[in-house]
Amino acid sequence: MTVNIYDDLNNLEAAFRKTTEFTDVLQTVEEVKADNEALELFKGFRKIQLTLQEKQMAGEEMVPEELEHAQKTAQLAQQNPKIMKMLEAEMKLSGVIDEVNRVLMKPVQEIYETI
Amino acid sequence: MTVNIYDDLNNLEAAFRKTTEFTDVLQTVEEVKADNEALELFKGFRKIQLTLQEKQMAGEEMVPEELEHAQKTAQLAQQNPKIMKMLEAEMKLSGVIDEVNRVLMKPVQEIYETI
Ligand SMILES: [Ca+2]
Ligand SMILES: [Ca+2]
Repeated sequence: MTVNIYDDLNNLEAAFRKTTEFTDVLQTVEEVKADNEALELFKGFRKIQLTLQEKQMAGEEMVPEELEHAQKTAQLAQQNPKIMKMLEAEMKLSGVIDEVNRVLMKPVQEIYETI
Repeated sequence: MTVNIYDDLNNLEAAFRKTTEFTDVLQTVEEVKADNEALELFKGFRKIQLTLQEKQMAGEEMVPEELEHAQKTAQLAQQNPKIMKMLEAEMKLSGVIDEVNRVLMKPVQEIYETI
């Protein structure tokens, strides 16, 4: 890049870390970590998500017992208020990143609209 | 957001528009637009891509004639040097946006690594 975006990108990253959306994720994760029940539920939930992803990528099917276990773990995790708060905070933070992408993609789309 | 990222995001967007990657897309698109053959090939290619996407989303299968037509159009477009230059420039610009996402996702991943 002749023009370097890194100074502006680093400034954006610093501001991003100070947004309520970011500090809310930080805080809600700390709350999950401080609660053994929530922490174990979340770890179990994440482990199963990873296993499912790996199976999907390998093109393997889940056996009914695995599917039932995955659904139960997801359900239990989503019933935990601390995990729910954390997942909600995570979604709001994704919204900030989506907005960054929208702002940067707009001038690119405008170029292609001229074709 | 209590802390607002928009000032920094607007600065980043302004720097992004000045990168070689962005101005290369702008220039290669102009070169395609200035060449009737390249322009028509690209429009045909884009039209078929959209049709395929719509069919996929509707869960419809392509008939063999459509598939053959799509492959021929893609092949012709990719043999055109001006279209190729434009698609290459587009990929490099996507790399800049990917880098922005990596820089912003890093502090988020670091939070989750503590769990
Ligand atoms: Ca508890
Ligand atoms: Ca030509």
